[in-house]
Amino acid sequence: MFCLTTETDPEWAERAVEQLDRVLVDHAHCEMKAASSALALAGRAVIAPSIVRPLVALAQEELAHFDEVLAELERRGLELGPPPVDDYAAELLGHVKGPRSGRERMVDRLLAGALIEARSCERFKLLAEALGQRGLHEQAAFYRELLTSEARHYTLLRRLAVEVSGDDASVDARMLELASLEGAINARHGTAAAIHG
Amino acid sequence: MFCLTTETDPEWAERAVEQLDRVLVDHAHCEMKAASSALALAGRAVIAPSIVRPLVALAQEELAHFDEVLAELERRGLELGPPPVDDYAAELLGHVKGPRSGRERMVDRLLAGALIEARSCERFKLLAEALGQRGLHEQAAFYRELLTSEARHYTLLRRLAVEVSGDDASVDARMLELASLEGAINARHGTAAAIHG
Repeated sequence: MFCLTTETDPEWAERAVEQLDRVLVDHAHCEMKAASSALALAGRAVIAPSIVRPLVALAQEELAHFDEVLAELERRGLELGPPPVDDYAAELLGHVKGPRSGRERMVDRLLAGALIEARSCERFKLLAEALGQRGLHEQAAFYRELLTSEARHYTLLRRLAVEVSGDDASVDARMLELASLEGAINARHGTAAAIHG
Repeated sequence: MFCLTTETDPEWAERAVEQLDRVLVDHAHCEMKAASSALALAGRAVIAPSIVRPLVALAQEELAHFDEVLAELERRGLELGPPPVDDYAAELLGHVKGPRSGRERMVDRLLAGALIEARSCERFKLLAEALGQRGLHEQAAFYRELLTSEARHYTLLRRLAVEVSGDDASVDARMLELASLEGAINARHGTAAAIHG
């Protein structure tokens, strides 16, 4: 899917469906972090002013999803709780280039964001299928709707990276490097009932 | 105005009107920081789950304002640029209680946020008046509309502080302390063409 280099074990979805409450709580935090990260990028996009408003629009959409998941938590009597550790995202963001060039770092952060969206999209697809197989059609539809947003966000963030870089080829090359790193990180996960678990 | 203990020198508005471009850029960053701070509070409101969704709604409104100010920057051919230093907010947030009790710290952050909203409201009022006096009615209307939002946010954040604390009297007492500190900080500012300058 997209440029992902490894596939998540479908067993992950089985575990996730069995512990859907835990997945939902984790998911809420993911949407919050996505909004927060889009906003942080927007506020620091000095080198590429044209990407500010698209990032603000992205943050607004992530916030709307955050609220949607919060509403679902409320319906189920669940609480948001403290932010869970997301080793997957932390490892991936650890590969974002250091302060050598602000532009390179911005490209990296956008591409890492794009990869996280692509992975979430893949996971939501697995989850929707597993839920559908168990006859949980309403929940399946919820994730199917979200996965189309994640796919759009992947495309948007990749496009913004090209806008910042001004060089399609170097963005493609760096995306391949980061996608390979992401694939390796993903291969070490896929066991816990969390969106990136 | 509200519980503010000092008034901003009306001279501030004269300087701000003369350098409205600078004020707008600073203002955009203020809206971004307000959204970001509401979101950070929402993600950490473990001790008071009921305040999460109101904070998310607040973050959404701040983002909408951020985008409105960005649109105005675009119309004027201005760029967002790097986040300016906001000594006023930094000093005020320096008085937020340390990690003794998570609940006390949360109350403090909400009340500090409420005071910043109250101060912005006061400044927008001065700005709207100064703009109106110069016949700049469209710009005056822009700030008049925003000041009513700031007033609502002040009320909301104060109410959420009471919800977290569960004790009206102690929130009132702490608000008086913080308002007195804020008043002293404000008295040392009011000279620069920035929302809290």
